[in-house]
Amino acid sequence: MPDLPILPDPKDPHLTRAVRAVDQQGAARDIRVVEERPLTIYLNSQEVVTSMTIGDYPEYLAVGYLRNQGMLLDEDVLTGVDFDAEVETVVVRTERTTDYEDKLKRKTRTSGCAVGTVFGDMMEGLEGLVLPETTVRTSHLYALAHQINTAPSLYLEAGAIHGTVLCQADKPLVFMEDVGRHNAVDKIAGWMRMTGVSGADKLLYTTGRLTSEMVIKTALMGIPVLASRSGFTAWGVEIAQQIGLTLIGRMRGQRFLCLAGDERLVRDADLSSVADEPKGRVRKGSRGG
Amino acid sequence: MPDLPILPDPKDPHLTRAVRAVDQQGAARDIRVVEERPLTIYLNSQEVVTSMTIGDYPEYLAVGYLRNQGMLLDEDVLTGVDFDAEVETVVVRTERTTDYEDKLKRKTRTSGCAVGTVFGDMMEGLEGLVLPETTVRTSHLYALAHQINTAPSLYLEAGAIHGTVLCQADKPLVFMEDVGRHNAVDKIAGWMRMTGVSGADKLLYTTGRLTSEMVIKTALMGIPVLASRSGFTAWGVEIAQQIGLTLIGRMRGQRFLCLAGDERLVRDADLSSVADEPKGRVRKGSRGG
Repeated sequence: MPDLPILPDPKDPHLTRAVRAVDQQGAARDIRVVEERPLTIYLNSQEVVTSMTIGDYPEYLAVGYLRNQGMLLDEDVLTGVDFDAEVETVVVRTERTTDYEDKLKRKTRTSGCAVGTVFGDMMEGLEGLVLPETTVRTSHLYALAHQINTAPSLYLEAGAIHGTVLCQADKPLVFMEDVGRHNAVDKIAGWMRMTGVSGADKLLYTTGRLTSEMVIKTALMGIPVLASRSGFTAWGVEIAQQIGLTLIGRMRGQRFLCLAGDERLVRDADLSSVADEPKGRVRKGSRGG
Repeated sequence: MPDLPILPDPKDPHLTRAVRAVDQQGAARDIRVVEERPLTIYLNSQEVVTSMTIGDYPEYLAVGYLRNQGMLLDEDVLTGVDFDAEVETVVVRTERTTDYEDKLKRKTRTSGCAVGTVFGDMMEGLEGLVLPETTVRTSHLYALAHQINTAPSLYLEAGAIHGTVLCQADKPLVFMEDVGRHNAVDKIAGWMRMTGVSGADKLLYTTGRLTSEMVIKTALMGIPVLASRSGFTAWGVEIAQQIGLTLIGRMRGQRFLCLAGDERLVRDADLSSVADEPKGRVRKGSRGG
């Protein structure tokens, strides 16, 4: 397992582009914007999905997507993950045909598209799931938020992007960003799958909202704690409570709210040493999408 | 056409739920969070997709989704839009079987899932598209932003939600919110399709990011101007430039950036009369997702 964190590379010329804008007073301004490109994911010979992505770590994205959709099981042996930049495809190869390829072929014949099916399958995977009884120090939460918010990132470079970070104690390990709503977390899942790293002693931090899908994905990655600057949906909260996942949101400066699994929290932080953030009074939109 | 705007109903008990949270100091707090529920959309007897939605205006969402995906054409005659709250389905019925049902059945047999196909189809619809040569007064832009940001909304009530507003001159006409990334704009498209309202003299305002898909959807709805508080992706900008759509982003207080179609803008606003908003220094996450 690598001991240095994986971080976004804001200077990678494939990830942002300079464009000319005109401001409110008619003055020309050059700004950098993030790229967005299609990536088609295959499982062996079966085309599965075309996802819009910023384009870094395509192999992790493909493996993580298939793993998070339940199409690639823990017992499946990966024999190759081949990215072709020219035709924008990743082919994930397994030793034997996976169970899911047949399922996908069969189900799509009757239901038109696998979207509903996939969602159903994801919920099923939660039955009997037991997340480890770890603890989370609030001093670590604040330390993580500070490191993540000040790390070099595509968000600071160009905005309009989501970030997700796999953390252990007070250390960020893998920091992924993407334009696609769930691509950042899928890339983390792919990294975990390909390096064999367990989620049991980890925390997942995301800049996005805590929806049902984020909660389900985190739980299925075996990670017992999910934290975010953003808010919650009711179903996200309900699922977290049912499966015993610690759900922390609206983390801003000193403030946060814990909506489920509060028993894991150890409130050891000296709040007087944590910088507070003024409470927002207006709509904030820079993370929208 | 109704002359009163359609607005979110933050007090609708089906759209938010009270949940108990614990804050950073261990104090219990009751907060409201938005609901999120699955809605399965059928086109006649063909199941098309299951979408996660807040649950209001399901008929507009279904019709708008099918219309924006190119599955429901302008010449298709709607004979019924039936929402069943019990089983969380909407069935959109057309006079004759649409072209798309056959297409979906055929294509999914070979490609596994229609996602890639749908995306390809959406790009195709842009060829030959000409958007009307309208003008946009910046005084109207500022007036719209002010009205939208202060209107009663689920965002102000519970956060963690996206908003999209169909506007005409300086008047918001239809204000839709949803947890799903593109549901809010699909609901607008459904309202336009079912009421027969044209996009030619309209502006679309969104709280989300200006990605390729948002730009494509706006253009296919015949709306020549798209504005947002959020940022841009490179492909979103590129497509807007190619098809001549006016793309305005990062609207905060007095500031905004126009990335395409600047020739439609009439800078008539007296900037000294527009309240400015302090430039953000920290990550903002309340719109994430």
